[in-house]
Amino acid sequence: MAVISPSRRVRRTPFTPGVEAAGVKGYTVYNRMLLPTFFEGVVEDYRHLKSHVQVWDVACERQVEVRGPDAARLMQMLTPRDLTRMDVGQCYYVPMVDETGGMLNDPVAVKLAEDHYWISIADSDLLLWVKAVALGYRLDVLVDEPDVSPLAVQGPKADELMARVFGEAVRSIRFFRFAMLPFEGRYLAVARSGYSKQGGFEIYVNGSDIGMPLWDALFKAGEDLNVRAGCPNLIERIEGGLLSYGNDMTRDNTPHEAGLGKFCNTTSAIGCIGRDALLRVAKEGPVQQIRAISIDGEIPACDRPWPLMAGGKKVGQVTSAARSPDFNTNVAIGMVRMTHWDAGTKLEVETPAGMRPAMVQDKFWI
Amino acid sequence: MAVISPSRRVRRTPFTPGVEAAGVKGYTVYNRMLLPTFFEGVVEDYRHLKSHVQVWDVACERQVEVRGPDAARLMQMLTPRDLTRMDVGQCYYVPMVDETGGMLNDPVAVKLAEDHYWISIADSDLLLWVKAVALGYRLDVLVDEPDVSPLAVQGPKADELMARVFGEAVRSIRFFRFAMLPFEGRYLAVARSGYSKQGGFEIYVNGSDIGMPLWDALFKAGEDLNVRAGCPNLIERIEGGLLSYGNDMTRDNTPHEAGLGKFCNTTSAIGCIGRDALLRVAKEGPVQQIRAISIDGEIPACDRPWPLMAGGKKVGQVTSAARSPDFNTNVAIGMVRMTHWDAGTKLEVETPAGMRPAMVQDKFWI
Repeated sequence: MAVISPSRRVRRTPFTPGVEAAGVKGYTVYNRMLLPTFFEGVVEDYRHLKSHVQVWDVACERQVEVRGPDAARLMQMLTPRDLTRMDVGQCYYVPMVDETGGMLNDPVAVKLAEDHYWISIADSDLLLWVKAVALGYRLDVLVDEPDVSPLAVQGPKADELMARVFGEAVRSIRFFRFAMLPFEGRYLAVARSGYSKQGGFEIYVNGSDIGMPLWDALFKAGEDLNVRAGCPNLIERIEGGLLSYGNDMTRDNTPHEAGLGKFCNTTSAIGCIGRDALLRVAKEGPVQQIRAISIDGEIPACDRPWPLMAGGKKVGQVTSAARSPDFNTNVAIGMVRMTHWDAGTKLEVETPAGMRPAMVQDKFWI
Repeated sequence: MAVISPSRRVRRTPFTPGVEAAGVKGYTVYNRMLLPTFFEGVVEDYRHLKSHVQVWDVACERQVEVRGPDAARLMQMLTPRDLTRMDVGQCYYVPMVDETGGMLNDPVAVKLAEDHYWISIADSDLLLWVKAVALGYRLDVLVDEPDVSPLAVQGPKADELMARVFGEAVRSIRFFRFAMLPFEGRYLAVARSGYSKQGGFEIYVNGSDIGMPLWDALFKAGEDLNVRAGCPNLIERIEGGLLSYGNDMTRDNTPHEAGLGKFCNTTSAIGCIGRDALLRVAKEGPVQQIRAISIDGEIPACDRPWPLMAGGKKVGQVTSAARSPDFNTNVAIGMVRMTHWDAGTKLEVETPAGMRPAMVQDKFWI
């Protein structure tokens, strides 16, 4: 496999020294920043994640900060999810769409104050979209990328580890809520969230200077918990049906196609830029949608869309796939046309290594 | 060094099969797409580039297509360079800026017709900016990413190789002009341009399906020219002072700081979004600017900004650096404060491997 070449353009994170010391073996690039992909091995990391606790450098989840009198108005322009009842201290998963309803990102919005939000983004330069919308609509807001880098603590022992570093208060943080908790005299937003199904937290590290001190504090406190450096795990996230923007859906797809219709309040999300287009989609329903897919046989790494075939016709595509040790099959995420999306439908998937039998599942594995 | 993990999100290009067959050893990610960084080795590739001819997969230079009655107006909104005299068939290097004059990209604009442009972008999702500007200002334009992938042919034998595939007409294409030339019955824009100082062309391959046929045709025609797969070469581009957006300048910098003031016609570029801010910059001049920097001693790969120091004070930073065999020094690009930017100024650069002597040069090496 080819190495990744170093450059300033592919940014290091505040935690990269820790990641390197932990022996990272693979990277991807996410928002023009390094994101580790495995340490011991994808399978070894997966087993450890499900049993212990891991610290993840997810600084590449960059923040788009929106602040000012028009902040709430701008936020509602960006997403079809109704934000009127969002509380300060709450996180919302918010599909963001263009004027045609095409997805531009699927970030988590973090409400810090009535006039102050962070948008914790997936892999696209959403900052440029938000800045230009604010400019074009002459809104009174500041839009910028602050020096805030998320660090995730994931796994069944995450509560215990976090309580040792941030105090018992972390245990009472509810899902997709955050509390402002002190570390070395600075208050950090600590949210119960993260890109795994094993439970845990994301710490919005406000200021690169305390990145490694926090990393080190977590590892010191977690020695007897078998804490390790980890990262979003390909197998575990597919088992859990956690979508990846750029992999499983792109600007070509509506939120409804991505199975995110429940986050689209098209009747009440007044002001959303893509509302007209999505009202139409909501009325007619999508003609293709994300499904859990099982695949038999040996498969290579999924580095391109794999056509899903039925009777010699293309009826969809697989965009994420991996061998699952726990479920003893290849777990996959695909977009399937409505004619073939019912659970139990038998399909074939065209991988670079050949055709493989596939089946539409009724739900993801966990 | 860590490997780069495959995924659909980090897109393959129409030429990736050729790149892989040629034995690519390193990649970076550019516009969420694979960009090779070396084949034999950075030094071996460099020597070959300066002597023969190379074919480069630069599909990651994605196009932002702007088409419609307001296309020219929108293009002028994006850049401080005056576009009023730009001809159909011409390419312009155009810094693009936000409302504060901060650089968002430094693409090449390609004028296909009075109402039809491609913006061949550096590494940022400029598409999102352009789409939102068009939306916010209610312009009558279509903005999208077409299936167009540049393939570069670079090196002293580039004219000869291109003439064999596209005919003698290529020889008369002037610098930063393009001609529409046929390949397998399809007309492709062939421009005299490219990210090296060795001369050559960029072919805007319109349709992924003819990517590998063109790749193969070039290799077949160039056998006796010692044609090889190549890529933008770190050493050669620093020697030549070719800037890299994201490395040498970012959204924090104005075009004037990047030494691109000559492309800013702030008095005549009426309508440019950043014009007010840049009029101020043009009046006062930048307080820091890009300079060629030589560095003595052994240096590591430049994967983060290296502080430039004078008398214990930070006076700038180096963002690209490499050992140059031809000039027998380390060649580098840095941003230096006006107090220390005169040629001959002796500085120190703080690399992760220690302090190294550095000197401001009066110009780049070639």
